[in-house]
Amino acid sequence: MRLLIKNIGWLQTPAGSYSHKGSKQGKNLKLKDAAIAVEDGIIREITEDGKLPEGEFDQEIDAEGKLATPGFVDGHTHLVFGGYRQNEIPMKLAGAGYLDILRAGGGILDTVRKTREASFEELYAKSEGFLDEMLNMGITTCEAKSGYGLDMENELKMLEVIKALGEKHPMDVVPTFMGAHAIPPEYEGRGDEYIEMLCSEVIPEVRKRGLAEFCDVFCEDSVFNAEQSRKYMEKAREYGFELKIHADEIEDIGGSRLAGELEAVSAEHLIAAGESGMDSMASGGTTAMLLPATSFYLGKTYAPARTMIDKGIPVAIASDFNPGSCPSLNLQLAVNLGYLRYKMTPEEILTAVTINPACAINRGDLVGTIEEGKQADIVIWDAPDFEMLCYRFGSNLADKIIKKGELIK
Amino acid sequence: MRLLIKNIGWLQTPAGSYSHKGSKQGKNLKLKDAAIAVEDGIIREITEDGKLPEGEFDQEIDAEGKLATPGFVDGHTHLVFGGYRQNEIPMKLAGAGYLDILRAGGGILDTVRKTREASFEELYAKSEGFLDEMLNMGITTCEAKSGYGLDMENELKMLEVIKALGEKHPMDVVPTFMGAHAIPPEYEGRGDEYIEMLCSEVIPEVRKRGLAEFCDVFCEDSVFNAEQSRKYMEKAREYGFELKIHADEIEDIGGSRLAGELEAVSAEHLIAAGESGMDSMASGGTTAMLLPATSFYLGKTYAPARTMIDKGIPVAIASDFNPGSCPSLNLQLAVNLGYLRYKMTPEEILTAVTINPACAINRGDLVGTIEEGKQADIVIWDAPDFEMLCYRFGSNLADKIIKKGELIK
Repeated sequence: MRLLIKNIGWLQTPAGSYSHKGSKQGKNLKLKDAAIAVEDGIIREITEDGKLPEGEFDQEIDAEGKLATPGFVDGHTHLVFGGYRQNEIPMKLAGAGYLDILRAGGGILDTVRKTREASFEELYAKSEGFLDEMLNMGITTCEAKSGYGLDMENELKMLEVIKALGEKHPMDVVPTFMGAHAIPPEYEGRGDEYIEMLCSEVIPEVRKRGLAEFCDVFCEDSVFNAEQSRKYMEKAREYGFELKIHADEIEDIGGSRLAGELEAVSAEHLIAAGESGMDSMASGGTTAMLLPATSFYLGKTYAPARTMIDKGIPVAIASDFNPGSCPSLNLQLAVNLGYLRYKMTPEEILTAVTINPACAINRGDLVGTIEEGKQADIVIWDAPDFEMLCYRFGSNLADKIIKKGELIK
Repeated sequence: MRLLIKNIGWLQTPAGSYSHKGSKQGKNLKLKDAAIAVEDGIIREITEDGKLPEGEFDQEIDAEGKLATPGFVDGHTHLVFGGYRQNEIPMKLAGAGYLDILRAGGGILDTVRKTREASFEELYAKSEGFLDEMLNMGITTCEAKSGYGLDMENELKMLEVIKALGEKHPMDVVPTFMGAHAIPPEYEGRGDEYIEMLCSEVIPEVRKRGLAEFCDVFCEDSVFNAEQSRKYMEKAREYGFELKIHADEIEDIGGSRLAGELEAVSAEHLIAAGESGMDSMASGGTTAMLLPATSFYLGKTYAPARTMIDKGIPVAIASDFNPGSCPSLNLQLAVNLGYLRYKMTPEEILTAVTINPACAINRGDLVGTIEEGKQADIVIWDAPDFEMLCYRFGSNLADKIIKKGELIK
């Protein structure tokens, strides 16, 4: 099966299979009047200046002079969950805070309850719908975390859903085990014991079943402290997982320092990250997985993205899709916020939604750039340049989606 | 032609053909297990509690237990414009302000240049695409302003485009003449003369040709002052136009006071509106047309919506779609911001995107509610309740669109 994508006005892509930091974050290749030859889902040849790859093709896609980029990679999602939380609106309008809602049985524990109640089939069908929508908006690879089960049975159920989605849906889905997302009600006040249970029982079982590539922990005041997070992550590493950490979302309690020290692949959120944490991440080679739509939704400040780039930390931007702090799976909105709030340049932002998150979920060899030998995950945008995607907002500008060489939309 | 919309889980709508203020703004009708009978595009019967209207139907639409609301009304758009302004991103990232960009030939004058250069056909085709997208997102009626021509020929061209769109597109489009949107380059430093020209030449011609129902003026520091705005609006009223005013977007220079004093139908933006301006609006019966996505895009504060509701001002929420300060036509995002930033309740917000803007563009008798005798402009949402539309963001939740009794999507 040979596919030709022709008449690309501009092809814009980062290059290479490694994460980009510092000034490299802002350097994309830009090829004018380009075309791409794809064979059996793999990019075989890229031409520019109106030249065309040679040979015969089974299918041709006309990009009509529009922009082509690599398919977006969403490196941080809580894709699988039961219920929604719109019923919290009256409490929130009345000024209730996160802890007030939690005490009233709402917040994350409400999602945990509904996720535990939901069957595999219900969770699968719901998440499949989300993946369809994400793909339709230009995301071709995503990460998905467990973390609303919070016990052996339900964490495994979530991970089985993620696995099945990855096998059956066109989207590439990379699984992360996040049993340490919250303290479940039955362990209230006993965070140490819960972490111990995860370390001794669930982490080994997840490994045995091969259900996750990464382990993630929510290191935050009133969730898991730095010591608990370290214990969990060291155990995860012992079992062969790579490490991610939700760090410094609300307060800097040492999460980003820990991330760098443990050479975690990524630290996520980082709204409150301080100098020492960022320096630690830079020296540990840890990617900053920034989640601007969460800052937007919660009305918070924004992570210091420019400082991170200056410090040589690879910056990625992800959706953080989840039913509490960010009920949006729209990564194009996160692109807008990368420009409007982080003040990142369009090229830095493209890197942040393609190769950098791809590397942070171990898919840098496969996706994240348009280069010969990589998987043909390509989006044609209803735009002449990537600036347009930073500038216009609220519209889905993804015009054509090519996933593994197949035209999905 | 008789249409039945059945199996509506909840039908939520304001009631009446007048704008809603104070506590009434937050009162919607909610009918459970409802159905709607439509005849020749007009709503003929509404049932609830699982009962069905009697008679035979030519077409049935199954709402599948979802939420139905009136089609959204976008009461403030700059729908027709040449070009885009994504090329300003580097200047903006370098810290250039509005006036810096204007001095470099950018900003609104760039849009004026490109709008003047564009043909009727080019503007029509582009705006038609926007209307398609708006309709697909649940907007069934919109207002559209001129104001990027800024001379007789090009203002008329824009209004002719708006008229043709209103005639040919399924969307109802209500035209507003806004020659007083900016001072054109050829009148630089001569705002008084420009206003005089508009009053003596363009307003009479627009009236003669029947190309607009409203006149609007940008009353703002370094655009048109209160005195110029008053002159323009009094002339407009003399010619039979109803009045709108862009007021207090950046500074309160008297725009909202003027709006109330002249009993303008609406004052728009109002970010900086003060007590006396709001009191004037309340006594003048002027609707506040709030544009939260513009505050978002510019990183500004938000209009004091709650104070306005407390003062008995009818509040509407619109997109402000335009190529400079708000390149988004997504009114669902404005709904999110109504909740997140204005702290309005879901019922207040539904009123603000249906009957209140409908009345502010003189369509309150026709649209803005689901009631017998009104036009069948109805949206079925992929949501069980309107809270879901306030809570989820970034997804187009419009599932089915019925415009004048025709299933558009």
